[in-house]
Amino acid sequence: MHTIAPVELEKAYRLINHGPTILVSARDNGTEDVMAAAWACGLDFAPAKLTVVIDKIAKTRELVEGSGMFVIQIPTVAQIQMTHAVGTRSLFTDPDKLANCGVELFSFAGFDLPFVSGCSAWLACRLIAEPHNQQVYDLFIGEVVGAWADTRVFSDGHWHFEQAPPSLRSLHYVAGGQFYATGEALNVPSET
Amino acid sequence: MHTIAPVELEKAYRLINHGPTILVSARDNGTEDVMAAAWACGLDFAPAKLTVVIDKIAKTRELVEGSGMFVIQIPTVAQIQMTHAVGTRSLFTDPDKLANCGVELFSFAGFDLPFVSGCSAWLACRLIAEPHNQQVYDLFIGEVVGAWADTRVFSDGHWHFEQAPPSLRSLHYVAGGQFYATGEALNVPSET
Repeated sequence: MHTIAPVELEKAYRLINHGPTILVSARDNGTEDVMAAAWACGLDFAPAKLTVVIDKIAKTRELVEGSGMFVIQIPTVAQIQMTHAVGTRSLFTDPDKLANCGVELFSFAGFDLPFVSGCSAWLACRLIAEPHNQQVYDLFIGEVVGAWADTRVFSDGHWHFEQAPPSLRSLHYVAGGQFYATGEALNVPSET
Repeated sequence: MHTIAPVELEKAYRLINHGPTILVSARDNGTEDVMAAAWACGLDFAPAKLTVVIDKIAKTRELVEGSGMFVIQIPTVAQIQMTHAVGTRSLFTDPDKLANCGVELFSFAGFDLPFVSGCSAWLACRLIAEPHNQQVYDLFIGEVVGAWADTRVFSDGHWHFEQAPPSLRSLHYVAGGQFYATGEALNVPSET
């Protein structure tokens, strides 16, 4: 039993601030794809924006460009195999990629987008078209228009991985199949 | 006793791929500053590039724009207080910011840049000027022109935090003084 709750858009940056590896998903003309990306990053607080690098070899990129919408979601340690699989297989060469990788999709009411089940948080994004960045750097900018999190690990604007099963921690990719999980909680008291 | 060794530029992205909070430093006309940033991210492999978001309120930004060079470095758990301090104080209002925050600087031969002592890795970057991104999004792009790491935690192209003291792990900032350390090592075997 767990609960998925909306996250205030002004705090949505906190969902990716710790630098997790993320999944990008998009749908266009009935085609859906999901890919893994290590290069996603906050860009602004209000309105909340983020950047994500999406290579030209990814089918997901066509779907983002075609629909002008995408989802950034945060996979868990329990999803490490699926995350690695969607990061190495391509819909171009494997038409059954999502099924073969064990991806299950769902929707949030009011958002016609493919969200990946089992993640810890989701950010629905509207593409802010910047053709120069997209073409030269494969860099996409999105405005966050919806955000949700699994309340076992994120609530009241903060992650609390330390109070939940380790399988819900985020993944941080290095290279060649090497990941780290999010680790120990550390706090610095605010300055007086 | 520890060793700092160069990192191949084509593998430099791995130094920030796990999404750590980083320190940005720069020097211009004899003025040096160091700030913390959670929004830094890989952008390309070869030549290695990265993005970093630097707000207009940061003195560091002036130094980056003035000199066209900056350093991205990865602070450790042992440096959490300093990291938080340089992220909350400004050289504009605290001329002795670096001393007050306990920052010590050093140089690598051939690079006239302020590197922060005690970090686990350093990336010397040349600014790729993109005025639209800088002005509208506070987004800066750098090409990595030099990279080094503390071999206790990074060697042969991979992090190995699990074989070193926990105080050398990276920091991952959320908000309000809340950080996580890099955690458990997890590996997915490459597909056959």
